[in-house]
Amino acid sequence: MLFLNEEHIKEAVTMKDVIDAIDFTYEIYASNHFQMPTRLQVRDGDNTLLLMPVLTERAIATKLVTVFPNNTEVPTLHGLVVLNDKQTGQILSLLDGSFLTALRTGAIGGNAVRHFARKDDRKLAIIGTGVQGLYQAIAACTERNISDIYLFNRTKDKIPGFKASLERWIEPNIRLHTANSAKEAISSADIIITATTSYQPVLPDDPALLKEKLIIGIGSFQPTMREFPNTVYKLANSIYVDTEHAIEESGDIAIPIKEGWIKKEDVQTMSSWLTSQSSFHRENHSTILFKSVGMALFDVVTANLIYEKAREKGIGVQLDF
Amino acid sequence: MLFLNEEHIKEAVTMKDVIDAIDFTYEIYASNHFQMPTRLQVRDGDNTLLLMPVLTERAIATKLVTVFPNNTEVPTLHGLVVLNDKQTGQILSLLDGSFLTALRTGAIGGNAVRHFARKDDRKLAIIGTGVQGLYQAIAACTERNISDIYLFNRTKDKIPGFKASLERWIEPNIRLHTANSAKEAISSADIIITATTSYQPVLPDDPALLKEKLIIGIGSFQPTMREFPNTVYKLANSIYVDTEHAIEESGDIAIPIKEGWIKKEDVQTMSSWLTSQSSFHRENHSTILFKSVGMALFDVVTANLIYEKAREKGIGVQLDF
Repeated sequence: MLFLNEEHIKEAVTMKDVIDAIDFTYEIYASNHFQMPTRLQVRDGDNTLLLMPVLTERAIATKLVTVFPNNTEVPTLHGLVVLNDKQTGQILSLLDGSFLTALRTGAIGGNAVRHFARKDDRKLAIIGTGVQGLYQAIAACTERNISDIYLFNRTKDKIPGFKASLERWIEPNIRLHTANSAKEAISSADIIITATTSYQPVLPDDPALLKEKLIIGIGSFQPTMREFPNTVYKLANSIYVDTEHAIEESGDIAIPIKEGWIKKEDVQTMSSWLTSQSSFHRENHSTILFKSVGMALFDVVTANLIYEKAREKGIGVQLDF
Repeated sequence: MLFLNEEHIKEAVTMKDVIDAIDFTYEIYASNHFQMPTRLQVRDGDNTLLLMPVLTERAIATKLVTVFPNNTEVPTLHGLVVLNDKQTGQILSLLDGSFLTALRTGAIGGNAVRHFARKDDRKLAIIGTGVQGLYQAIAACTERNISDIYLFNRTKDKIPGFKASLERWIEPNIRLHTANSAKEAISSADIIITATTSYQPVLPDDPALLKEKLIIGIGSFQPTMREFPNTVYKLANSIYVDTEHAIEESGDIAIPIKEGWIKKEDVQTMSSWLTSQSSFHRENHSTILFKSVGMALFDVVTANLIYEKAREKGIGVQLDF
């Protein structure tokens, strides 16, 4: 079996490869040819172990994640993806599940940029400069010729490290700006990406700053979490989600439906949109909302792609039981 | 994290260590200080993926097993055990789950030999010379001075390979005999171990050949599977199981209860027996039955022991995400 850590994965695939894998995942999601059982959660006080198996026509993979919110010395999340052979059950690969998750989550945002950003969108705002925000920025730069990235984080001291990490990935001519507020960050942006763990909207409730933009929400993954203010729902011409679970799982969709700001029918899955439309032309004045909560189907497709590319290129550590 | 394959595990622990871990597992089982959720099964035609997480006070481990019954070129089972740190969730070790299962299953049988065989029991019969039978024989030899092992298998051509594997583990003065029938194998044995996948009794229904013996059943792990004939239940002075699940899961316990040959109260778990008795003297003329179906609690305790011993001894391949 092939052991693939962060460095191996970076060598094996490009962000564009992973964004392609997201398109392929939406096709599988639309086809219904997969099994994704409800994840098994084992709780131990504040700590959780999550087991997420998925079967597609090509691959079997299980993501194991531990969430230990009180960790101070080490990360709160640790992940492993185990990829098994669809024909024999043999273990093909053991992959860094934390990095794979960050990478594919970046690619989910990047995929929304691919499909919904205007061709000449140049300015990007990132609200929340954690690991998720980093891969969001990288993925957006993969899909459009970004000239400026405006960064805002609640605690400003995280920004220098974020910039240093981002500069290793992107073209040197892209300008990075530190904003003093979310308002400042988004004011001239064409694309806004929020990647926080907030329970309150992190964008200003001001239509002038939000209209005609592509707004991508990555953070809120629980019904009580929110990143978007009410105005967003009044402006949005279209609302897309990466999986129908987003309707229950994210406060950015669940609360607006509950409050009557939007109807459930206003929310479309990417899979149904991609498989139903033949060509898409975004109206210049439209505001588009994309909300992601993720699902293990992205992990299995991405893990299988990484494994195949790594084998082709001879990357990784070969291990045997 | 420490990668531990079969060779590493053999170097890290002795069979006696693992038999001690089985005693410790029974203590934990009796204390109820653990979480062992119902295993998550994902089915794909004839094939199955099983996920078995367990939390104890010391460790978190998940066993992932694929069962592909139609495999011809490679084994039908593939297993991985992932051991996580109880304090932080970090992945401590990735262990060969197939070998770990065979080893701990051998040790469960060996643990029954430790507690129930007479001190001077010398003769052992093994019915079923697959992987499980091999580790049963090794474990029995760890606990008693076995002089003779009688081997019977439905297909005789497996016996030479089994003998060759067994000889690498046991003392050279132990005599190995190939029997032409189960009857021949057990006729002079003090300890009988069955390790088949049979749906019909594999021992002769003859009280003269079974009485006053220690009879250990490892095979039947489904309600429709059986290894023991009816006579065994008439002879047995005591019936022990490794977990209370055996009462539903194994045809060797479920069918006799359903047919009224024994009562549910006649069946005692090892954990309750070990924690209630102060000293045990086996009556010379008694017949004892022990039935194992296994449980993931054995895996987590064994995995944690192997990991700790491997670290102490500097064994295994260190990997980093």
